[in-house]
Amino acid sequence: MGNPLLLPELRRLLSEKNETELREMLAELHPASIADFSEGLSVEETWELLGLAPIEQQEEIFTFYPHSKQEQLASGAGRERMSALLERMSHDDRVDLLKELDDEVVENLLPLVAKAEREDIRRLMSYAEHTVGSVMTTDYAILPPDVLVDEAIVRLRHQALAAETIYFVYVVDQQHTLLGVVSLRDLILAKPRAMVRDLMQTDPVSVKAEQDREDVAREVARYDLLAIPVVDSQNRMVGIVTHDDVADVVKEEATEDFHLTAAIAPLTKGYVHSGVGLLYHRRIGWLIILVFVNLVSSGVIAAYEEVLAAALTLAFFLPLLIDSGGNTGSQAATLIIRALATGEIQLANWWKVLVKELAVGLSLGLTMALASALLGYFRGGAEIGFIVGLSMLFIVVITNLVGVLLPFVLTRLKVDPAVASSPLITTVADASGLLIYFTVATWVIDLPTT
Amino acid sequence: MGNPLLLPELRRLLSEKNETELREMLAELHPASIADFSEGLSVEETWELLGLAPIEQQEEIFTFYPHSKQEQLASGAGRERMSALLERMSHDDRVDLLKELDDEVVENLLPLVAKAEREDIRRLMSYAEHTVGSVMTTDYAILPPDVLVDEAIVRLRHQALAAETIYFVYVVDQQHTLLGVVSLRDLILAKPRAMVRDLMQTDPVSVKAEQDREDVAREVARYDLLAIPVVDSQNRMVGIVTHDDVADVVKEEATEDFHLTAAIAPLTKGYVHSGVGLLYHRRIGWLIILVFVNLVSSGVIAAYEEVLAAALTLAFFLPLLIDSGGNTGSQAATLIIRALATGEIQLANWWKVLVKELAVGLSLGLTMALASALLGYFRGGAEIGFIVGLSMLFIVVITNLVGVLLPFVLTRLKVDPAVASSPLITTVADASGLLIYFTVATWVIDLPTT
Repeated sequence: MGNPLLLPELRRLLSEKNETELREMLAELHPASIADFSEGLSVEETWELLGLAPIEQQEEIFTFYPHSKQEQLASGAGRERMSALLERMSHDDRVDLLKELDDEVVENLLPLVAKAEREDIRRLMSYAEHTVGSVMTTDYAILPPDVLVDEAIVRLRHQALAAETIYFVYVVDQQHTLLGVVSLRDLILAKPRAMVRDLMQTDPVSVKAEQDREDVAREVARYDLLAIPVVDSQNRMVGIVTHDDVADVVKEEATEDFHLTAAIAPLTKGYVHSGVGLLYHRRIGWLIILVFVNLVSSGVIAAYEEVLAAALTLAFFLPLLIDSGGNTGSQAATLIIRALATGEIQLANWWKVLVKELAVGLSLGLTMALASALLGYFRGGAEIGFIVGLSMLFIVVITNLVGVLLPFVLTRLKVDPAVASSPLITTVADASGLLIYFTVATWVIDLPTT
Repeated sequence: MGNPLLLPELRRLLSEKNETELREMLAELHPASIADFSEGLSVEETWELLGLAPIEQQEEIFTFYPHSKQEQLASGAGRERMSALLERMSHDDRVDLLKELDDEVVENLLPLVAKAEREDIRRLMSYAEHTVGSVMTTDYAILPPDVLVDEAIVRLRHQALAAETIYFVYVVDQQHTLLGVVSLRDLILAKPRAMVRDLMQTDPVSVKAEQDREDVAREVARYDLLAIPVVDSQNRMVGIVTHDDVADVVKEEATEDFHLTAAIAPLTKGYVHSGVGLLYHRRIGWLIILVFVNLVSSGVIAAYEEVLAAALTLAFFLPLLIDSGGNTGSQAATLIIRALATGEIQLANWWKVLVKELAVGLSLGLTMALASALLGYFRGGAEIGFIVGLSMLFIVVITNLVGVLLPFVLTRLKVDPAVASSPLITTVADASGLLIYFTVATWVIDLPTT
């Protein structure tokens, strides 16, 4: 990388119509880099530049522009060139792009696109968000089973320009039923007179278009695949999902889980492209819900008002105890949520995890109890030290178990376990922590309860 | 998938030495599936089964076994067969495997491995954790620039068995300097008499072996690469990192960040393989630190003891106010940590983000202030309502900014921003929240302070 060519020079070359130098630059640089430093060009300048590249490269550069720039290029005077480009774009990328564009822009564009392509676009656009169908592409390479290797390579050569990958080729019969998969590596290594049928791996891993896109990520990771075929209920091929789209899915799902665990409704457009209003809406929901969940905590304190009045020193340790509960619960929940998300543990293993965490919780609780009993002793004497320590032990053990169980319960209820967010657990831990604290305090110092 | 062959039948076939059927099964199934249902076999049975597969497939099946099974297969009677297998394994997989095995097992194995392979193993094992070198492999396909396409394909055919991928081929000179990259697709499409030099993309994206492995993940995602070349300071090729290893890096880094944001020292072995003792150690550190950070909160309450004694109703809203601060701060920190991790925002953009979050924080703060003022009014009257509402506004705006800034500050200090964990922010938010609350309370109800 590190090409010294910058925007003003690019503008100069365009205004001078210095096509030789521009073409040289286009040939030398990676499409992502070209998109990077031509982002600042006007719509006309950009199409002028793209016009100098072969159509395949135009498509590639285009997909690397930010969506706002893509939208500008697709409207107004760019419409004609855009529809020509759409016909050549990879089938999943163009659907992703069209989904981002204004409905109006799309409705203006589609009539200019060839009928077969238009139908493919409408079909791919119809799959629901988060399904395999929404991330698959329909431009894959296929072969019939009964051709020889040298013939197969000739056929692949014809499909190479249109297909997203030719490194994995799907063997299908006349009804388009998936029979097997053969890699280009195997074809290259095979004897020219060998038959595709004899080279192919039968019974390949596949997914269905309606499945959750997380399933495809898990299968691809498990088998180190470059691409995975998507089939319908009759095992007929309808598309493929390639490794780069899988990588995007993994990233997006991780981001979603991160946001959920912090009690944020997931941002689909990314942080930078989300405005103040959208960020507010994604965050305020849980914050307000948690305010009301907190009424329980207020209620507990109110119920024990007299205890508190009689021994105000107890108030000093309120934040310590409820925070420690929340922290322990968040740790446990995060460990379980992540292990469930990566498929490391399954719902059925919940009791094994519970037993393990009972031991972990007890060890953590004893250590924390000791530390906080000392703090309590120094600030409030032996009695307060005992109360704080004993409460801490109960609180840590119990919130740890809550943190472990909540993700399992949510998974069982078919809710994303990441909803067992740290803030939610903190708030739940507060209420139970306060109840434990005041119960222990009342029991130890024998004060009047309400 | 869904092969009905189960462990007892596999045992029966092995004891009957029914090689025809076993070989058929090996040829039909994916290595991951074979590993799956042969996991329960004894060491002798497993080597017997593996012996029936071609050596390349043995390697593949082996890498899909869990590490404990791999270790058993490499010790004792399996040593000889293991070292033969090691010589044929992909260079990164065998290093990963050897790193997991007991030092003693490795020292017993290595003398049986051929010298050149042994040196390659020692070199790859020497890279530090989390560097690109630790995830790269040295078995990649290369071509000189000045060969014709048909000759290039013949050469690739010879490298195909040993190389991790032949879909991207690196063009190097005699000093092994990286000149360019050419895809097998381009070679297949090109005229047989074309020259590799004219087909290759020059100035390819590359990384250095000492760089952080997160860099490689970012580059591969950015450019949708199948593999990325690794070079030394003189631009000489030393390895490649392939897309499947990048996927593992992305997953591991996300898990690390998840653990860090919940104040857990990252588990490198995964949850299931971490025992109670290890889990305790990874969790207790932060929990104890946070107990001591909480001393500040205790101190604040103690300092305002008289205020609290005079208006005990204030205590009812302690959990509500400090939790809301913690929740808001966690949300902000999580958004920023994730956006920094995915490269969506950079350190230099901190002030843009700050301005945006000032607006978001104000909107959130006003809404939350209104809700909590109402709660305060109903429980404690107008004065308490005013105090709670006003405190909430200040707390939300301030903790939101703390949540935004902390990840930037940590990044600036070259600390993983994920250390700005929700528990840490919660605890910091507590202390500031209490201070704000009591300051506002003192100011409004005009009580004696200490």
